[in-house]
Amino acid sequence: MDDDATLVEDLRRRIAASPFHAGFGISVEHAAAGDVLLGWEARPDHRNLQGLVHGGILATLVDIAMGLAIRTVVGPSRRHVTIDLGVHYLRPARPGRLEAAGTVLRVGSQVGFAEGSVTDATGRSLVRASGTYSVTQERTDGATG
Amino acid sequence: MDDDATLVEDLRRRIAASPFHAGFGISVEHAAAGDVLLGWEARPDHRNLQGLVHGGILATLVDIAMGLAIRTVVGPSRRHVTIDLGVHYLRPARPGRLEAAGTVLRVGSQVGFAEGSVTDATGRSLVRASGTYSVTQERTDGATG
Amino acid sequence: MDDDATLVEDLRRRIAASPFHAGFGISVEHAAAGDVLLGWEARPDHRNLQGLVHGGILATLVDIAMGLAIRTVVGPSRRHVTIDLGVHYLRPARPGRLEAAGTVLRVGSQVGFAEGSVTDATGRSLVRASGTYSVTQERTDGATG
Amino acid sequence: MDDDATLVEDLRRRIAASPFHAGFGISVEHAAAGDVLLGWEARPDHRNLQGLVHGGILATLVDIAMGLAIRTVVGPSRRHVTIDLGVHYLRPARPGRLEAAGTVLRVGSQVGFAEGSVTDATGRSLVRASGTYSVTQERTDGATG
Repeated sequence: MDDDATLVEDLRRRIAASPFHAGFGISVEHAAAGDVLLGWEARPDHRNLQGLVHGGILATLVDIAMGLAIRTVVGPSRRHVTIDLGVHYLRPARPGRLEAAGTVLRVGSQVGFAEGSVTDATGRSLVRASGTYSVTQERTDGATG
Repeated sequence: MDDDATLVEDLRRRIAASPFHAGFGISVEHAAAGDVLLGWEARPDHRNLQGLVHGGILATLVDIAMGLAIRTVVGPSRRHVTIDLGVHYLRPARPGRLEAAGTVLRVGSQVGFAEGSVTDATGRSLVRASGTYSVTQERTDGATG
Repeated sequence: MDDDATLVEDLRRRIAASPFHAGFGISVEHAAAGDVLLGWEARPDHRNLQGLVHGGILATLVDIAMGLAIRTVVGPSRRHVTIDLGVHYLRPARPGRLEAAGTVLRVGSQVGFAEGSVTDATGRSLVRASGTYSVTQERTDGATG
Repeated sequence: MDDDATLVEDLRRRIAASPFHAGFGISVEHAAAGDVLLGWEARPDHRNLQGLVHGGILATLVDIAMGLAIRTVVGPSRRHVTIDLGVHYLRPARPGRLEAAGTVLRVGSQVGFAEGSVTDATGRSLVRASGTYSVTQERTDGATG
């Protein structure tokens, strides 16, 4: 995708300003209207008993990528709040460099739809996900973002 | 539910032995065959830009509860690995005490199904979730658990 | 549940007035605010090559139950349109009498959440489902209902 | 995609032999290993009270497309049975010509993952879906296909 420097800058500012995002440690690799690519390093302390990266962490990563993709489209006056998140785990993930992509499918006046994926350093697809977001201007029904 | 002391002990041992679970900070409140109740404290650094607990964190919490519920049923010789995770966000979550419940719907020879929920200290339902788990003895298709 | 005769009557009228619902052949067994129970007969021509009732038919059945449950809560001036539908198939279904239950989890000003299930004549759970619905008064983002 | 004439023929034979598929009225437009494209005509009697094609019908259509895509990969000795189906409704569907695509993401020894979509005659995306399938040789946990 062609980077949009203003969008990249805006997303980086948002990440720095959010306690959770800042602590999670993601970097914005690319961003354009409707598309975001994040980099993230899975550490040994993200492993479960089986030595694999915990699925909740991967769900978090891909939800962030999809939410930020929605963010690039809705404009500053609207909120985005996750209504539902669906994650499929195709292959196990091990500590190391991962990438997460988020892509907008559609943003309407009230609801936005996105899809996402997580790949490892060799380009193998580990996770495929979908998310629905409330994108209204006022206080919403949903919950989290 | 009636507690099963052996199950509670086994789950606590597993949590302590898993780098991710130990760091996440959950406590096993109750456990019986097919049912697990966890306690967890959402901290200020779990908040996003809107001041709400990030949805990925709640997905992680409910995935842990469902996975441990599957764990109480499958026995020590089988693994449980998340195949898919679906999370609905009913209401926003704020820092403070939360509880997460996991309940087994069915465990077959290869696939297990569970449902879960997250509630706040006043008993309001914040999250409803479903999960599918690979529960075979050998190396599996899925990914994370 | 305690039946609400007015709700039962309203749902039956809606089913009769909708070409799709009328053809599908469901009956309203019980209805109260937030809860609907439907009866339906799976016929031999609903079977796939393996002799089992096709999953799409069960998805349809449980989506109808959840949508009608939302219907009992939103009132006549609001529409309900499915945003997302998630279905887990716990056990195979064979031709014969089935029941489908829909239960509202929450209805806000814009989004409604419901859960549903399909059981066979012996009470065994075959399907568990969740649905999100747009419930606004005006023309919505979503799609189908 | 490049058509594989043998796969197309096999899928058409399966559709003709399944009571449900034959009655549903789909046509196989294209098929290659891991990819299937179906054509289908939404009729006036598929409409709900709002005049839109019912979401359950669209869920059925996309589940068929994904299941047949899995079918092109697993070979004749293995079954495919739907474990879970997730459908997002992006835009309303009206009676007329629709196309449904199914694409395999991964097929392992026990579980297969696919994604699907439904588009209208103008190429607009109406539905995006994901499905998980049990693909073992013996009798499985799942349910429907």
